[in-house]
Amino acid sequence: MDTERLINGPCPISRALAHVGDCWSFLILREAGLGRTRFEEFRLALDIAPNILTRRLAALVAGGLLDKRRYSQRPPRDEYVLTAAGIDFLPILLAMGEWGRRHNGAGSLSHVEEVATGREVRALVVDAATGRPIEPGKVRLVLPDTPSSS
Amino acid sequence: MDTERLINGPCPISRALAHVGDCWSFLILREAGLGRTRFEEFRLALDIAPNILTRRLAALVAGGLLDKRRYSQRPPRDEYVLTAAGIDFLPILLAMGEWGRRHNGAGSLSHVEEVATGREVRALVVDAATGRPIEPGKVRLVLPDTPSSS
Repeated sequence: MDTERLINGPCPISRALAHVGDCWSFLILREAGLGRTRFEEFRLALDIAPNILTRRLAALVAGGLLDKRRYSQRPPRDEYVLTAAGIDFLPILLAMGEWGRRHNGAGSLSHVEEVATGREVRALVVDAATGRPIEPGKVRLVLPDTPSSS
Repeated sequence: MDTERLINGPCPISRALAHVGDCWSFLILREAGLGRTRFEEFRLALDIAPNILTRRLAALVAGGLLDKRRYSQRPPRDEYVLTAAGIDFLPILLAMGEWGRRHNGAGSLSHVEEVATGREVRALVVDAATGRPIEPGKVRLVLPDTPSSS
């Protein structure tokens, strides 16, 4: 994959993927959202090979979603904490989760609840201006050099 | 990655990733949302290696996001059309695009507009019940075997 093109291209979806990367990155962010911060916690929770975890954590730090902080000098140990940009990605994971529930939801599934009330929360992607669900057939992607009306 | 665990595990986010797969899959879905259906269209738009495109298209068909249809018998040619589940994934791409705009948005970017009016549309992930943006600090993921109140 031409990462340079993803990072600098005109598509904001590519711009997001350039920073998030692959399946493992999504799952690492999920675990970070659950409060995990340490290499061993991520490794055990995801059953992920250490070399892959090292690489994906470094990519998420470089992408600005995780902040690497030294929590022990001796032995040297780092933890990985969600940045504001990382926290801002979590609702997208919840929207993906709703899709997974709708389209691949057989069997027992985890869910999201409001901490204060225990109420189950369902994520929905809406048009920010109207609050209505986005209907894919009624919108279109416009490239920077595409005339905006036809 | 243990695909079996993604497919059958309790996390609906994993359930989505099991069907969507990797970066290329997201971009193929983006192109499908733009109306592309044919192998050569995807290949040229994404500058993707044919063997990878073949594999990702097959995975998206297996995952139920694309439908493979033969449009020519001689020579045999197939096209790939978004299913209802595939169309249902597009708003998540738009939410990812908004994240990319906010956190990696330097330079010229494409945007989404309402076809009927030309109005720019910004995707937002909200709590379906209240219509309010989801605040990650105020919700938590609950596994099927976790007591729902603490």
